[in-house]
Amino acid sequence: MAIRKTTDSALADVLQLETVTTDCYRQVRDQLREVVIRLGAKGTLRLPSEAELSTALGVSRATLRSALQALQQEGRIRRLHGRGTFINRYALGVGANLAEAGAFVDLLGRAGHEPSVRIVDQRVVELGADDATALELTAGTPALQIERVFDAGGEPAVHSVDLVPAALLGENPEQRDAGRSTFEFVETHLGPPVCYSVAEVRPVLPSPALVQTLHIPATQPLLRLRHTHIRDDEQPVAVTVAHINDEYLRFSVIRTYLDE
Amino acid sequence: MAIRKTTDSALADVLQLETVTTDCYRQVRDQLREVVIRLGAKGTLRLPSEAELSTALGVSRATLRSALQALQQEGRIRRLHGRGTFINRYALGVGANLAEAGAFVDLLGRAGHEPSVRIVDQRVVELGADDATALELTAGTPALQIERVFDAGGEPAVHSVDLVPAALLGENPEQRDAGRSTFEFVETHLGPPVCYSVAEVRPVLPSPALVQTLHIPATQPLLRLRHTHIRDDEQPVAVTVAHINDEYLRFSVIRTYLDE
Repeated sequence: MAIRKTTDSALADVLQLETVTTDCYRQVRDQLREVVIRLGAKGTLRLPSEAELSTALGVSRATLRSALQALQQEGRIRRLHGRGTFINRYALGVGANLAEAGAFVDLLGRAGHEPSVRIVDQRVVELGADDATALELTAGTPALQIERVFDAGGEPAVHSVDLVPAALLGENPEQRDAGRSTFEFVETHLGPPVCYSVAEVRPVLPSPALVQTLHIPATQPLLRLRHTHIRDDEQPVAVTVAHINDEYLRFSVIRTYLDE
Repeated sequence: MAIRKTTDSALADVLQLETVTTDCYRQVRDQLREVVIRLGAKGTLRLPSEAELSTALGVSRATLRSALQALQQEGRIRRLHGRGTFINRYALGVGANLAEAGAFVDLLGRAGHEPSVRIVDQRVVELGADDATALELTAGTPALQIERVFDAGGEPAVHSVDLVPAALLGENPEQRDAGRSTFEFVETHLGPPVCYSVAEVRPVLPSPALVQTLHIPATQPLLRLRHTHIRDDEQPVAVTVAHINDEYLRFSVIRTYLDE
């Protein structure tokens, strides 16, 4: 497919999005991702210039650049020095990108399911050895444990357990609103803190409890993601272990080879 | 941990690397990754300026920037507008990063194993429906199939099958040197072509053939990565299906939350 330059009219056409009212980078990132998907669907693979995009979206160049960096990191675009910014066409079809920090409800929705979330349990527990190590604490330290099930059209698709040290949450952590995702919880209750997560990716067979919770045979392998969430000051602040039935949610990862 | 600025002497200390003789971006990326790991190990979390780094490494700013972008994409560093470039400390310990395009021999070596690779089979086959679709060809189209086993200390750890359309390889594709990895093969035989891959990540139980090849019980789940490699002109040029015994090689992925 030939790469052709976007014309102003094509850009105006694609930018029929609601105006961004704040300079919030996440909102701009999501909006820019939408622009990329729409341009890609039309066969346009070269993004407009930063100047054009920041004017069209009504945001500062700095905010736009942060959003471009995020999309680059997700593997959706490539920036080639002296040539411009290009859309990775085959990355467009990827609904659940392992490198994108996203809530399971959103991912299930994008995968075409009617998503919902249930808080199964929320209470203070003592950290086990592995989780304590990940959080740089000692075993037995109290932590708020939030157990969720994410449903797809009423069927259980994902099970997750969050652990957040109680000391970070003040009094009565078991009464905090768990929200609909770890991301939301951490953002709401720990300030604007998490700057990255490290997630170990493993194939596992379900425990007897997961066989029951997820309504699956004991022989069906699950994808297990064990996240450690790291705050801006390089402090690990939460662990999330998620087990995913990939009949409902299938992840991909985009490996970009950058060049000059 | 406090973030402190790198001093010139610290930088000089860390930069005891062989000089980069060409402007090759990949070499610079690998060297810069080494710098990041060494600085991080010393507790330095802020990278020197682009000017300092390009002088120290003896490369152009453009090359340096490409390497910085690659490391950012891998989740090893974060670039914050007006604040500088920071090392993700908890990403340092990640040996096998799903977002890094790497050869299995290298990944097994980094995981502490004595790695080796065997070409099990190399011949021209007819593409099945799924692989043909991924390659935008019709089922039955001839393709070179390369089957490899990657050993860790003499024990089979990873099984991979590459499929490259025969039409891209000229005459007698079955006699081409398979090299030690898909990446090497594709780079050697298709020019400098692949700019990104899309890899689907699934947990699976092994087929009877994989039980034999990988010396594992039939109940041990494997991580299955199914890559489609995309060339610079947005043409899919190869499919690689890899099955990984995660007793030997465990992947992580880093999800960075960028901000301004």
